[in-house]
Amino acid sequence: MVAAALSRIFAALADPTRRDMVARLSVGDATVNQLAEPYEMTLQAVYKHLRVLEDAGLVSRPPGPQPRPVHLEAEVFDLMDKWIERYRRQAEERYRRLDAVLEAMNESTSSEADERKGSAA
Amino acid sequence: MVAAALSRIFAALADPTRRDMVARLSVGDATVNQLAEPYEMTLQAVYKHLRVLEDAGLVSRPPGPQPRPVHLEAEVFDLMDKWIERYRRQAEERYRRLDAVLEAMNESTSSEADERKGSAA
Repeated sequence: MVAAALSRIFAALADPTRRDMVARLSVGDATVNQLAEPYEMTLQAVYKHLRVLEDAGLVSRPPGPQPRPVHLEAEVFDLMDKWIERYRRQAEERYRRLDAVLEAMNESTSSEADERKGSAA
Repeated sequence: MVAAALSRIFAALADPTRRDMVARLSVGDATVNQLAEPYEMTLQAVYKHLRVLEDAGLVSRPPGPQPRPVHLEAEVFDLMDKWIERYRRQAEERYRRLDAVLEAMNESTSSEADERKGSAA
């Protein structure tokens, strides 16, 4: 289900360490030890973060013997992007319509003012 | 701080009810009662969700007497978008470089094969 998948992806990215892992993996695959290096946390904590990213489909690790490189599944960004773009576009269209209404109101006000000016002359 | 803001935005959107609220507000402002209508939850629960969205900067309510319409702050999507796009682009570039390397390897393999074929003829 898309809704459940989206919830998992957004929740996974709500943590700064997990976002940092995604950022680093976008440059290249890395082993868990390489990934863990810059963080002041136990390897167990790193594995926990990785599991959240894996459950969200954001990273994968090929089956096989250690060390297995962690790989970023960048296609998952598409799901999030589609959601964001849809509502962003809807909101923008709405603002555009509002602007058009305001402009039309301004125009009718200024033409009324012109008419008043004209009749006063 | 951008990192803390991003964490709040992603966490706010990790809940399907809150995403639904954002989706509905993208079409137009709504009062809390209007927003609450389709959900089978207490008004208190709706206010709690709204507070999470407000803390993330995703919605706002103008000060003043009730009913105050809830307004979507669609610009906040930009922050999320920038983050996603940056790492998506980085990952795509990397795949492109990988493809180029693989292609070059294929070409050199096939030209070696051609050479072998040539010497056999």
